[in-house]
Amino acid sequence: MIVLFTDFGTGSPYLGQMKGALWREHPGALVVDLLADAPAFDPRASAYLLAAYPQDFPEGTVFLAVVDPGVGDPSRRPAAVRVDGRWFVGPDNGLFNVVARRGRDVAWWDLTWRPQRLSASFHGRDLFAPVAARLDRGEPPPGEPVDPGARVDPSWPEDLAQVIYVDAFGNCFTGLRAAGIPPGAVVEAGGRRLRRARTFHEVPAGAVFWYENANGLVELAANRARCDRLLGIGLGAPVRVLEGGA
Amino acid sequence: MIVLFTDFGTGSPYLGQMKGALWREHPGALVVDLLADAPAFDPRASAYLLAAYPQDFPEGTVFLAVVDPGVGDPSRRPAAVRVDGRWFVGPDNGLFNVVARRGRDVAWWDLTWRPQRLSASFHGRDLFAPVAARLDRGEPPPGEPVDPGARVDPSWPEDLAQVIYVDAFGNCFTGLRAAGIPPGAVVEAGGRRLRRARTFHEVPAGAVFWYENANGLVELAANRARCDRLLGIGLGAPVRVLEGGA
Amino acid sequence: MIVLFTDFGTGSPYLGQMKGALWREHPGALVVDLLADAPAFDPRASAYLLAAYPQDFPEGTVFLAVVDPGVGDPSRRPAAVRVDGRWFVGPDNGLFNVVARRGRDVAWWDLTWRPQRLSASFHGRDLFAPVAARLDRGEPPPGEPVDPGARVDPSWPEDLAQVIYVDAFGNCFTGLRAAGIPPGAVVEAGGRRLRRARTFHEVPAGAVFWYENANGLVELAANRARCDRLLGIGLGAPVRVLEGGA
Repeated sequence: MIVLFTDFGTGSPYLGQMKGALWREHPGALVVDLLADAPAFDPRASAYLLAAYPQDFPEGTVFLAVVDPGVGDPSRRPAAVRVDGRWFVGPDNGLFNVVARRGRDVAWWDLTWRPQRLSASFHGRDLFAPVAARLDRGEPPPGEPVDPGARVDPSWPEDLAQVIYVDAFGNCFTGLRAAGIPPGAVVEAGGRRLRRARTFHEVPAGAVFWYENANGLVELAANRARCDRLLGIGLGAPVRVLEGGA
Repeated sequence: MIVLFTDFGTGSPYLGQMKGALWREHPGALVVDLLADAPAFDPRASAYLLAAYPQDFPEGTVFLAVVDPGVGDPSRRPAAVRVDGRWFVGPDNGLFNVVARRGRDVAWWDLTWRPQRLSASFHGRDLFAPVAARLDRGEPPPGEPVDPGARVDPSWPEDLAQVIYVDAFGNCFTGLRAAGIPPGAVVEAGGRRLRRARTFHEVPAGAVFWYENANGLVELAANRARCDRLLGIGLGAPVRVLEGGA
Repeated sequence: MIVLFTDFGTGSPYLGQMKGALWREHPGALVVDLLADAPAFDPRASAYLLAAYPQDFPEGTVFLAVVDPGVGDPSRRPAAVRVDGRWFVGPDNGLFNVVARRGRDVAWWDLTWRPQRLSASFHGRDLFAPVAARLDRGEPPPGEPVDPGARVDPSWPEDLAQVIYVDAFGNCFTGLRAAGIPPGAVVEAGGRRLRRARTFHEVPAGAVFWYENANGLVELAANRARCDRLLGIGLGAPVRVLEGGA
């Protein structure tokens, strides 16, 4: 199974072009459009978002992840990373930092293979998709193994205390994992202090709250209303955990 | 074939997560993204919209339908319904009312199976998708058969006289089936009285009209213009049929 | 492989309905959603856009292309066109003009087959999808071969000097192929004169430039900013090549 995670935008032709490249190399591969609106031009916020999804897909899954503002810059290496039995293919610009740091069994390859036709602006189609197709077929990464410690930036925080995604309902995902937060903690965002609930129907319509979402992240939400508008926040907005409660 | 019908929003990660769950259980199942912008939080309007689509898919098709504002509420039952050879899986909150009432051969199951991991907010991924995958493989629903008469609300109207969907062009679907409406009838919406046409090219550019759309619904439309803006209406706007004409 | 190219809008039910029709006729066919936001109601601009994509897909690929404002008009013929080993199915309204004119080996069929159920407004589902499915299975087009010269309008320009697509980042594709333009040429749009760059990272953030995009078109772009807003332009905006430079 190959999972697409990009900032290409919903409805863009780029996803279909990558799918054409995948199926040219591996006809019939199962391809999931997971996310086309990862934080644009922001491999760091995208890295914390990407790290929330591997659990949803079986071992052997290949994540083809492209948030690549430095495409065409020769100093930006292409990478294939194996973390606990799942593959991640894309630019080595921090996008795989979080998933690699949280993994138990991590291996890293600098991709040295280059296609005959390599455009200056679309390595997702020309380089990363063919490599993802090969990995999905069971072939090894066409590159050089390197020490993951030489590639992962250890200075990043464990969790990211900001909004990293706003869904179609206006709910705001943060880069914080809920597992490490005391049940009674309050989350501050947009000048408001939010209490925890288990899920939407537990609060009145229009009420704002935080909860552990289905992927383990702290999510700011409102019942049948747009949390982002009620709090006046969006992508990148800072959040703060107040452990003592309100 | 499995058909996704949700209010999750175009481009949301939730569709891809459901697809991962479907293929984990049934690799290679054919999955169609039919609609991700069903009327949000509104199982009633969504029910009239859903009932327009079964004809487009062959017998045996499984509709995985999730418009589920009550997710996490233990009083909201999960259901599998078989109507004239097609399956419908999702929350029992009215979403299957219309398709069941219009069917000739209807069977209903309360789903009693629960997965090992059941999140509070995403039963589409955790419960409904695995059940849909099993039905698509030909397995029986993991639940208890019940009398459909005990689950379907008979108080709903046969048709719904309001706008239930606005497409990307601004055309407005109503919950009215055109088959029961006299050919010369006029439809009133947004303070305007619209005459019937057979299709777009029959009226001048910019003209507003109604027609029987390709799924049998009364649709308010404009030729090469946005009907919703021309009439100043949107989702939920009331419509009225004047049988005597203008 | 079947590639969908339409102006139906992202998230519309029409794509899923076409997919149902394709799989009803040819279960398991590989289907790529390439583009759902081709220039709406504009077969001419769409034709120049469509012609940029065949190279991305292998020989034998069937492009199911529907930009069809004249649907239901009996004078608008349905067509199947074979260009250099790839198929194009859809309305004969100019949509295949450019790809046919640029091809070396071109054959054209007027489609004479009609389905039992042919709606007035959705030939994509009822007529073009079943034909595309048969071509993908290797069957011949159900119609009459005609001389391509009798169907292609020779009066159109070789290239189209206007914006034909704006992507999710605000980058503006033009209908001009970069191969025929001198390297030092300047492109004028929105009252500004843009110089050429090889790719995004070569210019400062916020700078506007033009480049040869990954499909060979002249594209107006900005590094980490929206070119369409910076230039105050959109779909249909004229562009001009100044060969002498700035």
